[in-house]
Amino acid sequence: MGDGGQDGWGGLSVNRLAAPRVAALLDGAGPLGLRVERLEDGVTLVDAGIDAPGSVAAGVAIGEICMGGLGSVRLSARAADGWPDWLEVASPQPVLACLASQYAGWSLSAGKEEAGGRKFFSLGSGPARALAGREELFAELGYRDRPDDGAPVALVLEVDRRPPAVVIDKILRDCALAPRQLVLVLTPTSSLAGTTQVVARVLEVAMHKAHELGFALHDIVDGSASAPLPAPSPDGGIAMGRTNDAILYGGRVHLSVRGSDEAAHDLALRLPSLNSRDYGRSFADIFRDYEYDFYKIDPALFAPAEAWVSNLDSGRTWNAGSLNMALLRSLWLEES
Amino acid sequence: MGDGGQDGWGGLSVNRLAAPRVAALLDGAGPLGLRVERLEDGVTLVDAGIDAPGSVAAGVAIGEICMGGLGSVRLSARAADGWPDWLEVASPQPVLACLASQYAGWSLSAGKEEAGGRKFFSLGSGPARALAGREELFAELGYRDRPDDGAPVALVLEVDRRPPAVVIDKILRDCALAPRQLVLVLTPTSSLAGTTQVVARVLEVAMHKAHELGFALHDIVDGSASAPLPAPSPDGGIAMGRTNDAILYGGRVHLSVRGSDEAAHDLALRLPSLNSRDYGRSFADIFRDYEYDFYKIDPALFAPAEAWVSNLDSGRTWNAGSLNMALLRSLWLEES
Amino acid sequence: MGDGGQDGWGGLSVNRLAAPRVAALLDGAGPLGLRVERLEDGVTLVDAGIDAPGSVAAGVAIGEICMGGLGSVRLSARAADGWPDWLEVASPQPVLACLASQYAGWSLSAGKEEAGGRKFFSLGSGPARALAGREELFAELGYRDRPDDGAPVALVLEVDRRPPAVVIDKILRDCALAPRQLVLVLTPTSSLAGTTQVVARVLEVAMHKAHELGFALHDIVDGSASAPLPAPSPDGGIAMGRTNDAILYGGRVHLSVRGSDEAAHDLALRLPSLNSRDYGRSFADIFRDYEYDFYKIDPALFAPAEAWVSNLDSGRTWNAGSLNMALLRSLWLEES
Repeated sequence: MGDGGQDGWGGLSVNRLAAPRVAALLDGAGPLGLRVERLEDGVTLVDAGIDAPGSVAAGVAIGEICMGGLGSVRLSARAADGWPDWLEVASPQPVLACLASQYAGWSLSAGKEEAGGRKFFSLGSGPARALAGREELFAELGYRDRPDDGAPVALVLEVDRRPPAVVIDKILRDCALAPRQLVLVLTPTSSLAGTTQVVARVLEVAMHKAHELGFALHDIVDGSASAPLPAPSPDGGIAMGRTNDAILYGGRVHLSVRGSDEAAHDLALRLPSLNSRDYGRSFADIFRDYEYDFYKIDPALFAPAEAWVSNLDSGRTWNAGSLNMALLRSLWLEES
Repeated sequence: MGDGGQDGWGGLSVNRLAAPRVAALLDGAGPLGLRVERLEDGVTLVDAGIDAPGSVAAGVAIGEICMGGLGSVRLSARAADGWPDWLEVASPQPVLACLASQYAGWSLSAGKEEAGGRKFFSLGSGPARALAGREELFAELGYRDRPDDGAPVALVLEVDRRPPAVVIDKILRDCALAPRQLVLVLTPTSSLAGTTQVVARVLEVAMHKAHELGFALHDIVDGSASAPLPAPSPDGGIAMGRTNDAILYGGRVHLSVRGSDEAAHDLALRLPSLNSRDYGRSFADIFRDYEYDFYKIDPALFAPAEAWVSNLDSGRTWNAGSLNMALLRSLWLEES
Repeated sequence: MGDGGQDGWGGLSVNRLAAPRVAALLDGAGPLGLRVERLEDGVTLVDAGIDAPGSVAAGVAIGEICMGGLGSVRLSARAADGWPDWLEVASPQPVLACLASQYAGWSLSAGKEEAGGRKFFSLGSGPARALAGREELFAELGYRDRPDDGAPVALVLEVDRRPPAVVIDKILRDCALAPRQLVLVLTPTSSLAGTTQVVARVLEVAMHKAHELGFALHDIVDGSASAPLPAPSPDGGIAMGRTNDAILYGGRVHLSVRGSDEAAHDLALRLPSLNSRDYGRSFADIFRDYEYDFYKIDPALFAPAEAWVSNLDSGRTWNAGSLNMALLRSLWLEES
């Protein structure tokens, strides 16, 4: 596979592939506990946990939309390692699914005046990112998607309020979309759907770490992962901490790669979160101790707890790291 | 959410949502081992284990129909805790799915003369219940469904013979249905499909116990559960005992609730079957010792073995009870 | 159920039932990493791992096609017993799904001259086998499928190159198909899709062993199974060895049968691979020690590691054998 636009990726369009799932989300809004709102100009807002209750099933569906129709997310209700609910994620196209679509990398903000008196900030994720292509990552990937003729296009915002008009206008402009096409899915982390769709990023977190480690992304050809699903907390900070901990201490990933054994072995060893100097305490504690300065946290921390890497060019598999469910249970479960 | 008819539940119609699954069941009858019979007046009978063989997959499909299109049932063939097959159940609308639809609460009977010389008795379950609304529970829930224009409507009967005309007429009348709309699914507990669809009630059993304990049903907003799937016994009594034991000693449930921590904690502690004075022996033994008088059994027994309750209003989770797989293996497995 | 043609099997057509899945495979070729080629005469080739990358998800989809639309194959990314990825397989019609369709029993070969200078040999599997009916097994099963009006018909070939014209012509002739109907799916065992679709045969391997043991096939009425999914090796021999080992040492099966307890108990005891004198070493080692003469290997070896058999006529269940994950980890995993 080469680069040079969408064609270097087999002509796959994350927006076209996600469109049936976006339509199904709107269709199944009632059962999933979602509220669908149509703005005057035709933009659709999906409230997945602000005023609407949302649900775990909604978070699963939103997770698959985030992966651009190129991945599966599934709830498994079979307890293991002392926790009842787990998510399973898999993708035959992990670079496009996770980095070109699911990664929350599109920074969207508005000042106080534009946003009704309170600054607005959100990291957009999902297939619309690949239309806008506002992040350096897209040049690196050599991937851009093109708007399709009228199909719905989704962007997921981890926010607890509706985005201001100025942000919506920017999205429409950057994506070159008619308002009727745009579907903004709003998922507060403190909601069931919000927590679920973040934990569904366990494979994406591994892909991002592999990228940080300098592993050649085109060499990652298949991936699967799992993570325990915590209860959301009504406190946004605690909720975010739990979703991070779910991956850092409960996430497990298996990547199938091409290339040298040295690179594959090295990836397995360096991928797990235990390589970080910050490993071992809850994300909430780490964040507090760094005085809530996100950029002081060791970036190596953002990784699954356990990694499996198989090199298809040699047939060899390496494994490193391990789950720390005792820590998660101490954080998530009351003494009875 | 308030009450006052279907609209208090977001306009969700368990019959409308189940209809595509009913159509798929009829469509896939051959592969699933079902026999579809059309009565003269147009009523459809689905034999899922009387003369037809049925299957586990049929039981899974019937389980989802019972949940009114508002839940998922899945077979997991990955052994755990010394048993090969497990069911996983989840619902974003556990009150409607389990209590307004799946619960076997509609008493249908016919005397000897009306029923061909042998009394007929069955507890109907599934979405048609919410059209008839013959049970007090519907007033409590504030839910009633309305017949849809011509879509199929399903009622599941755990019986080993076809219902007599007088019972079918009563169902049609109470549901205000044209005969062509009604689909009666017949599932003897002693069949693969019958055993499967009963074990698929593991979440419903927890919802019912929560109701018995006086927990506010509207406060239960999401649920997941699992239970081991035993082999059916050709003896109806033993078959029923096994499906009960699967839930009482092998069922595990996770409820997400709203409200006070006190109520949530209390629910977790009181939910599991071990709170019952009858806990610890097989259902068949208990039933025999009470001389087959169902009403002498401690109602607290009817509950999953293990409960997890998360309070979304505080973010706290409690856990109580545990599986007793040693008992189930002693009941279900021969020494080799 | 009797015998005497397709009607003895309830009129089930493995080709008709698989057709929507074949169409979906062609439709989803891009996301799944497949390349679809149309030959001049209209025959469709699906490259699932020769020049195209393929994927695990493709192997899962191909596995379901192989089962003639009568079985489910699922990837589970929840590690257990020290291995990250597992397949789960189930069927409500295990005889048709596994033996009339999935079993790789149709011997297709061409000499040097006909095959471009290198002999061609492949064992065809999937629903097209039941149109050709070239194997004795079909007479035993009393099953034959009939070509449908224009729907796609799939045959899966475990090969690392395109079949020569003479083989394709033979397939068309024996199946009485128009070229436009035929879809040949090419899955080298050394590819992700190839390894996946072979491990998805874990239930089929049990059915075949049951047949070898003389168990009455019509008495097997339901089945489920699981097996760990190894990484493919670029070496075809090692790749084949791994897929065999996955089943022999990591496969677990549950069959629901009819008939006598004696026959069911005997089946459980004799089914597992440990009954073979060759049990305990990797398939690659065994094969080498027999100087690569396949027919010297004890046929009793080809079986899952663990068997559960439930007799529906008595309600009894037996269990024998057990997984040997220590051996598989020593074969599949590097020391880190």
